[in-house]
Amino acid sequence: MQKPKAREARGVRPGGRTARNRDAVFRAVRELMAEQATQQVAIADVAARSGVHPTTIYRRWKTPEALALDVAMAGLSQRSPMPDTGTLRGDLLAFATRIAASISRPDGLAFLRTVVAASGEVELLRGRRDEIQAMLDRAPKHHLRSDDVFDGLLAPIYLRVLFGFGPPKPPRLAQLVERLIAAGDR
Amino acid sequence: MQKPKAREARGVRPGGRTARNRDAVFRAVRELMAEQATQQVAIADVAARSGVHPTTIYRRWKTPEALALDVAMAGLSQRSPMPDTGTLRGDLLAFATRIAASISRPDGLAFLRTVVAASGEVELLRGRRDEIQAMLDRAPKHHLRSDDVFDGLLAPIYLRVLFGFGPPKPPRLAQLVERLIAAGDR
Repeated sequence: MQKPKAREARGVRPGGRTARNRDAVFRAVRELMAEQATQQVAIADVAARSGVHPTTIYRRWKTPEALALDVAMAGLSQRSPMPDTGTLRGDLLAFATRIAASISRPDGLAFLRTVVAASGEVELLRGRRDEIQAMLDRAPKHHLRSDDVFDGLLAPIYLRVLFGFGPPKPPRLAQLVERLIAAGDR
Repeated sequence: MQKPKAREARGVRPGGRTARNRDAVFRAVRELMAEQATQQVAIADVAARSGVHPTTIYRRWKTPEALALDVAMAGLSQRSPMPDTGTLRGDLLAFATRIAASISRPDGLAFLRTVVAASGEVELLRGRRDEIQAMLDRAPKHHLRSDDVFDGLLAPIYLRVLFGFGPPKPPRLAQLVERLIAAGDR
């Protein structure tokens, strides 16, 4: 298992043009979404606002939906970073608790609806999956994979919110974590 | 635990006017949806087609979204009835397998999108919850509730399909069932 590069672990971005373009495009998307009160922005507008050539944007993101989803994913990672509490149980519970809180805010629900609307573009979820896997790889003695965290923890939280129930309450989140850890012993 | 009435168990509907109205309204909704290739039908059109007074329809369903969801739920129950295999493990696996198959068809995905669009109307999911609870109540020696089946089995299936991954494959479904049963021992 390869460790993340040290400078990434310290939260410092690689400083290349690709990263600068990405930051400029994301900032433009967020500004336009806020100004236009929409989840859907035109790539021509993003290009004009960011100063990044439209061809560059199309080459990287292909569709406005994929771009919106990538922006939403980045926002989720910022609002709800992966915890590092020292134990797998603590990490999972902190992660679930933060997800449940952030996904219940209006922009969290907008994120879920964006993901659903963009389904087919789900390769963009891979970044989050890699973050989850890195959290699991730190912990000893279990057989959990990121799919198990998705199915056992994220799916109930996301689906309850999508269906309008609101997220699971803290005791239920703790129970879901215990069941997930027990499943990882097998 | 009260048993279902014998005539309901044989699939014969109670013959009151309420049930007849419901059948006529559902049939009208399905016909209009098919003809108009939409998930959204106007209650005035449903009233005209079914011969049921619009006031009666509004009193019972309140909104077109709630009516569409109720029709979708009834369709799901028909396409994917609760199994009765003689064991909890067999019931859960058969249930999960049928859900995974039916929800992956285009009309299954339309059902999920209807539920998401109508969130806030989720009291209509209670019928399904009652069916799941009845399946659990038949089985001895476990502590599972319908919420556990929702979180541990339906949520991963539904969310994977909504996110465009496609449903879990049979070995994964079997694993989810084993984990759910193990969780019900605690």
